[in-house]
Amino acid sequence: MRDHQTASELATATPQAGPRVPVAGMVGAGQLARMTCQAAVGLGIGFRVLAGAAGESAAQVCAGTQIGDYRSLDDLLAFGGGCDVVTFDHEHVPGAHLAALERAGMRVRPGAGALRYAQDKAAMRERLAELGISCPRCAPVASLGDVLAFAAGSGWPVVLKTVTGGYDGRGVWVCATPDEAAAVLAHGLDLLAEEHVAFDRELAVLVARSPSGQAAVYPVVQTVQRDGICREVLAPAPGLGEARAVAAQELGLAIAASTGVTGMLAVEMFETPAGLLVNELAMRPHNSGHWTIEGARTSQFEQHLRAVLDLPLGSPVMAAPQAVMVNVLGGDDPGLHARLVHVMAADPGIKVHLYGKEVRPGRKVGHVTAVGEGLAGLRDRARRAASYLRHGTEDEQPEG
Amino acid sequence: MRDHQTASELATATPQAGPRVPVAGMVGAGQLARMTCQAAVGLGIGFRVLAGAAGESAAQVCAGTQIGDYRSLDDLLAFGGGCDVVTFDHEHVPGAHLAALERAGMRVRPGAGALRYAQDKAAMRERLAELGISCPRCAPVASLGDVLAFAAGSGWPVVLKTVTGGYDGRGVWVCATPDEAAAVLAHGLDLLAEEHVAFDRELAVLVARSPSGQAAVYPVVQTVQRDGICREVLAPAPGLGEARAVAAQELGLAIAASTGVTGMLAVEMFETPAGLLVNELAMRPHNSGHWTIEGARTSQFEQHLRAVLDLPLGSPVMAAPQAVMVNVLGGDDPGLHARLVHVMAADPGIKVHLYGKEVRPGRKVGHVTAVGEGLAGLRDRARRAASYLRHGTEDEQPEG
Repeated sequence: MRDHQTASELATATPQAGPRVPVAGMVGAGQLARMTCQAAVGLGIGFRVLAGAAGESAAQVCAGTQIGDYRSLDDLLAFGGGCDVVTFDHEHVPGAHLAALERAGMRVRPGAGALRYAQDKAAMRERLAELGISCPRCAPVASLGDVLAFAAGSGWPVVLKTVTGGYDGRGVWVCATPDEAAAVLAHGLDLLAEEHVAFDRELAVLVARSPSGQAAVYPVVQTVQRDGICREVLAPAPGLGEARAVAAQELGLAIAASTGVTGMLAVEMFETPAGLLVNELAMRPHNSGHWTIEGARTSQFEQHLRAVLDLPLGSPVMAAPQAVMVNVLGGDDPGLHARLVHVMAADPGIKVHLYGKEVRPGRKVGHVTAVGEGLAGLRDRARRAASYLRHGTEDEQPEG
Repeated sequence: MRDHQTASELATATPQAGPRVPVAGMVGAGQLARMTCQAAVGLGIGFRVLAGAAGESAAQVCAGTQIGDYRSLDDLLAFGGGCDVVTFDHEHVPGAHLAALERAGMRVRPGAGALRYAQDKAAMRERLAELGISCPRCAPVASLGDVLAFAAGSGWPVVLKTVTGGYDGRGVWVCATPDEAAAVLAHGLDLLAEEHVAFDRELAVLVARSPSGQAAVYPVVQTVQRDGICREVLAPAPGLGEARAVAAQELGLAIAASTGVTGMLAVEMFETPAGLLVNELAMRPHNSGHWTIEGARTSQFEQHLRAVLDLPLGSPVMAAPQAVMVNVLGGDDPGLHARLVHVMAADPGIKVHLYGKEVRPGRKVGHVTAVGEGLAGLRDRARRAASYLRHGTEDEQPEG
């Protein structure tokens, strides 16, 4: 027996279901790529990831892993050359590289023109303003004077955000005073100042859109964040009126169409007494859609693949009356698997997803989903499971 | 960029979720291993398959593929040495090799003692008779005289089955005349003669059992076979009375406990006017359980892994009122993926699973599942999708 497949064997290890099977390549090998890899298996397509290292979350499970640097155009070109379509599990590939891939004739989905709005918050806000879509008030700031001028209109605290970069809360600072704003400015980043919105809650809507223009929108969900990190997602958003739900879905569809996104689009919103304000866009499968694996007829990961391959989209309807997803954050003790046994024994119906990532305090290392009927009960079960996986205790109750 | 991970990188590409993550190894790389691989991703465990070649169904998608021969004890020992538990996607590993792996201290699940009953039909029937479980009448036959003597009691047709080997109907011959029986005997196989049961329908029950003795039983399903190949599975079996359903589940649990199986056990049964007759056993995930991926809270593939790893079992309850699975058989045109587009467009709620196998007429190359409420509608949808994937037409109606 040989230990591993050779490179030439791997090259032939593509599906044999027909004369022509499409190959999708995903740049990045985090948990989003890992779960997309899982979805690719059922579709019978070829699937590859471009990983920075073999230990990354998706690289552990993907037979089509290639090692390379998403910041290197050479690596991207070599990776994309073997794929029918190139897509992404993060938004960090430089825009110039995306454009170069497109010039080289590759199908980049979402394309550089769309991804710009997920990479550059100033461009995104400008585009949404053109579309007449309400967002929190914001302005680019380069100095403390700019921030003070902005705060004169919007008051304190002021939210400072990096224009580019930033992932899941990192790159966002809520500044209560000019001193705090000055400390952020000292980093020398391109920043946007934004009003601190007194929202009632946060909502998100997920839309899939294909190159031929077909779109599918999932039920609107409520997201619960703490310390800038998504902690819980409730699907559908409890107590959301029909009119507002439809308005949120229409917002999502309008943004998808007008940005020309292909694949999944996540639109994060604030629900305020005055209506919905769009906060962030992501153009990829998104944490607010992990519940779809068990909770919807088509998971966001399968849907993303269908969309970028221009296959007809799957049904986004719920597979159960309600679903609650709670993220598992790393705790002090890395022994996640020892605690998994307890969680499985305590709740045979809970669905655990572990990402194979090294446990570090506060890092997303997995999620759990409870589906069925009765929000309070589902939420309690999902919280208990996630808390136990993190701490070995069940007493943590995320806010919300 | 390098094309592929090196062997040493693959060796380090194991999950990092904690100090100790279990590694499950599956011997065989067909569609059962492929779907088990998919389930392993969420559990965050290590997963390896022993494949005969890199193009095999599971080898295409499993990052932990090793190439070797399941008939070689050296290959099995080398494979098992890297795994915490060794399990199987088929029953063809020689019993002596299984025993040797156990003697070498490996956790073989199911173990050699249990697998014997899935490998040797004579031993299985003998064991079930000891347990007082009803089976079709049968007897070992070595000559036409033996067959004629058996037929004198049971009448014609006579079913001849190979004692060992045989997979999904191959290895079974329904002989209408002594001449047909003589033709089968001419192959020189070890054979069992069995009465041809005039059953009302075929049922199957799936049980998971773990080394610590925990068991979970799925709802009883109806299976529809044609030409010895499973075509459809209806979950739960329509119109099955509560008492008979419980009796079937109790049969499954009793057989699981008394054979000492670990992992999934599938018990195939005939429903007759006189009651249930046990026909076949399989000790692995089984075609009659593919519906569980979408239709049950815990899929049989995740359940198999939980069982062989001695993790607490997941809930086997249905995730929808009903589920219908129809196998996709190969047709004359290998262009499965071109037809997939039509199926997805025609029915956004149908779930397609393709196995990446080369299309050959009659070969199982995938399956489709429809879940929801209303058996007739679900069955119609699943049949249409499977038929279109096979032939490019929707007019085929499997019997049943």
